[in-house]
Amino acid sequence: MESLTFVLFGATGDLAKRKIFPALYNLFTDKKLPDAISIIGSGYEQMSHEDFKERVKQSINDFSRRKMESNEEDFLSLFHYQAVDASKTEDYEQLLKLVNEQETTHGSKGNRLFYLSVAPEYFDVIALHIKKSGLDQTSGWKRLMIEKPFGHDLVSARELNEKLTSTFKEEEIYRIDHYLGKPMVQNLEALEFTNPVLQSLWNNKHIANVQITASETVGVENRAGYYDHTGAIRDMIQNHMLQLLMMTAMHLPKRICSENILEEKQKVMESLRKIQAKEVARDVVRGQYGSGEIDHKSVRGYKEEPGVEADSNNDTFVAARLWIDNPFWKGVPFYIRTGKRMKEKSTRIVVEFKDSLKGLYETPYDKVAPNLFIIEISPSENVALQLNSKNPLKNGVIEPVRITFSREEESVPEAYERIIYDALIGDSTFFAHWKEVELSWQWVQPVLDAFEADMLPLYEYPSGSQGPEEAQELVEQEGFKWWLDDDEHGEAPGVFLPI
Amino acid sequence: MESLTFVLFGATGDLAKRKIFPALYNLFTDKKLPDAISIIGSGYEQMSHEDFKERVKQSINDFSRRKMESNEEDFLSLFHYQAVDASKTEDYEQLLKLVNEQETTHGSKGNRLFYLSVAPEYFDVIALHIKKSGLDQTSGWKRLMIEKPFGHDLVSARELNEKLTSTFKEEEIYRIDHYLGKPMVQNLEALEFTNPVLQSLWNNKHIANVQITASETVGVENRAGYYDHTGAIRDMIQNHMLQLLMMTAMHLPKRICSENILEEKQKVMESLRKIQAKEVARDVVRGQYGSGEIDHKSVRGYKEEPGVEADSNNDTFVAARLWIDNPFWKGVPFYIRTGKRMKEKSTRIVVEFKDSLKGLYETPYDKVAPNLFIIEISPSENVALQLNSKNPLKNGVIEPVRITFSREEESVPEAYERIIYDALIGDSTFFAHWKEVELSWQWVQPVLDAFEADMLPLYEYPSGSQGPEEAQELVEQEGFKWWLDDDEHGEAPGVFLPI
Repeated sequence: MESLTFVLFGATGDLAKRKIFPALYNLFTDKKLPDAISIIGSGYEQMSHEDFKERVKQSINDFSRRKMESNEEDFLSLFHYQAVDASKTEDYEQLLKLVNEQETTHGSKGNRLFYLSVAPEYFDVIALHIKKSGLDQTSGWKRLMIEKPFGHDLVSARELNEKLTSTFKEEEIYRIDHYLGKPMVQNLEALEFTNPVLQSLWNNKHIANVQITASETVGVENRAGYYDHTGAIRDMIQNHMLQLLMMTAMHLPKRICSENILEEKQKVMESLRKIQAKEVARDVVRGQYGSGEIDHKSVRGYKEEPGVEADSNNDTFVAARLWIDNPFWKGVPFYIRTGKRMKEKSTRIVVEFKDSLKGLYETPYDKVAPNLFIIEISPSENVALQLNSKNPLKNGVIEPVRITFSREEESVPEAYERIIYDALIGDSTFFAHWKEVELSWQWVQPVLDAFEADMLPLYEYPSGSQGPEEAQELVEQEGFKWWLDDDEHGEAPGVFLPI
Repeated sequence: MESLTFVLFGATGDLAKRKIFPALYNLFTDKKLPDAISIIGSGYEQMSHEDFKERVKQSINDFSRRKMESNEEDFLSLFHYQAVDASKTEDYEQLLKLVNEQETTHGSKGNRLFYLSVAPEYFDVIALHIKKSGLDQTSGWKRLMIEKPFGHDLVSARELNEKLTSTFKEEEIYRIDHYLGKPMVQNLEALEFTNPVLQSLWNNKHIANVQITASETVGVENRAGYYDHTGAIRDMIQNHMLQLLMMTAMHLPKRICSENILEEKQKVMESLRKIQAKEVARDVVRGQYGSGEIDHKSVRGYKEEPGVEADSNNDTFVAARLWIDNPFWKGVPFYIRTGKRMKEKSTRIVVEFKDSLKGLYETPYDKVAPNLFIIEISPSENVALQLNSKNPLKNGVIEPVRITFSREEESVPEAYERIIYDALIGDSTFFAHWKEVELSWQWVQPVLDAFEADMLPLYEYPSGSQGPEEAQELVEQEGFKWWLDDDEHGEAPGVFLPI
């Protein structure tokens, strides 16, 4: 691997502590960092190199999947610190000095990775100063890693992109969507290009509908300041949910590489049926959690959360029906659904197959359940096929059974390890490219407009529920149900039953 | 359920003790016997009713999946005994007297089920005497259950059938193939008619080959007298293996009932490509076990087994390639394979799918394994799909993974419970019908002829192995491998790898 300097803006922040330092440590332990690397943290606070190293060490102890071992000293020796006030040019000049020093020390070729783990209002400021200070002038490559949110709407996303691209070219920008770092999401393409049985089923001849769910049990937590003017539509739908939809619906290119996959994902977004603000109420359900019970504990409603306006009409739940108007997916609804304070913490894709055998056979059995292919993305990671089978314990009655593969999960690398590694080696496959981001905002913008103009109801749903009833009605319009893991019914454990 | 008298010939034999009495007990416990039933055991020995009941009781204690409980007395009260010398007409008259008595006692309608659990040389004798004594003259129905072997070759099978049908009509004859009583075999039709995803894959467009294996670790045991002039070809191939082939390859009729299924199975056998004696060496491999190791214990070779001729050329292993010349299976080889003293005890069907994605994608990955659908019939019962998936623990390398469903197996009813129950209710779906038996013998006869004329080698294979190397070469001719459970390689546990 090529030598490089890794400059982390926001090094004193929460994400650095919880995800980035642990990811770097695990990459280091797995020998997936270059031999010659300097990691320069920067933040508003003044701090010595030693104090910074102490923080990094603490973060590994608290959050890493592997505890710090004998490689502690070697690892910490990579870290340096430079205080930077985002708007002060001279601070960036100091930073450049440190970068130059490190590059000389390591005999580095001047490869520089800038990671913006900061609040979105600093994205353009920092990018601008990187240019102004000459940090971007290097004989090696330069890359920018940037966290969400990428804009607040279509206009602001375009503005932000324009600003960033005055310093970094599109191919130098690595927009993080950490859902794309999850192993099962990265596995979606492999499932298709290595499994003829799945590929031959992966079209509108065999598939009835696709359900993509990301539900959380937590509420807004301490993020009300950000979340109350963001909502599920921006926080989850515009980025993660639409990325999952693209990954599920895209067709693989002959040559599987970053550029070609981007192109295929873009095609999906271009085929996505446009929606106008006045039609949003037909295809989108929005909700906000009321009080209720999570894990047998009472929890308050969204409006009672600290930091939330008492008359907030912010969405904490969104369900939507989308159509991909291309020959592969014509007639197959894609349902997406995300919410806070839901019954279950789960991110999964359920593909429901058509009941193409209906009426073909006369048997003594009642109607049987549809076949499902289920991709569990988190918290568990597995793929499963739900079939029907005779139960020899019940006189051969036909029951759904779920055939599952799941791996021991203890030490699976975390999303941030993959993401950082891919940026280090310059593989942008599992990042959000500008075209995808722009097309996502284009689809989302009329929904935002309808939300803001209150053109559709905001349903309150009890905490600990499956969201508003109206989300159920949305899928019932095509005769379907949301498929949920039936852990608690106990009748057919591990089998998916409709709500 | 209708009242009936169950007459068991061979009631003092091994099968009665190990399988039939326990099956009757479990059916009784599950309330699957008629309220009015008499079970009359008959055998060569003289014995009182009480002594017979004692034997039945002992058999339940030794062999039943459920131990005798408070229903013991009720259950044993069903049993009676009548000594019968198979060739003595007067004994059958005594038997008829007892049957009549029982029918009067129960107010039975005269339904009579005769179960021949006796050596094959007595089949026709007993059937003849059932007629001669008037046991077959009844106002109710009469049925004959009969164990294998059904003939020793095509000619003797036809002779036997002619004799039986002078007393019983074809639809009154229930030929037992206990493989058809196994839950997973009975599940094959349900897998097809309830699972669109399987049905759409179940043809020569998607399937590369089908492998049906029944391997045992035991040797000839104490059955040399029977086995040494029977061999694997008669003991396993003509009945069980060809039945499994029919169940796998048949297409389901619109109305799923015994007659229609028989017809579909018959169509498979009629489409089976005929083989001539002089071609047998091309498509069939025969073997005989030598000494070797089973479970780390030395075992002797077949020729050293007690009761086996020192120069025996009997087959303890047969592998064969068969072709079904119909539009669904054209070009798909069906490989069958059975043997004693093999490495593993297992009956399974492995369906290997075509590698239809080969060359379609350019990826950084090496070639991947084919997809498999695996039906484990015994000793474990499950269905599994083998897919390929990225392994996040190994930098996303593509590996086969097996997604499996398997049920708690403790108290699954045994094959004989199903078989006897089906005969009681008159459902002949899972029995071997004469047309199937005859067509099986027709396919097998040239193989028998070639074996007897020594027109192909008899390969010795070490006990504890996968059979002769030449069985491997047989499938390699089409570019395939036998798929085996890779429990011991440990690299990818639970995944099927080629031998």
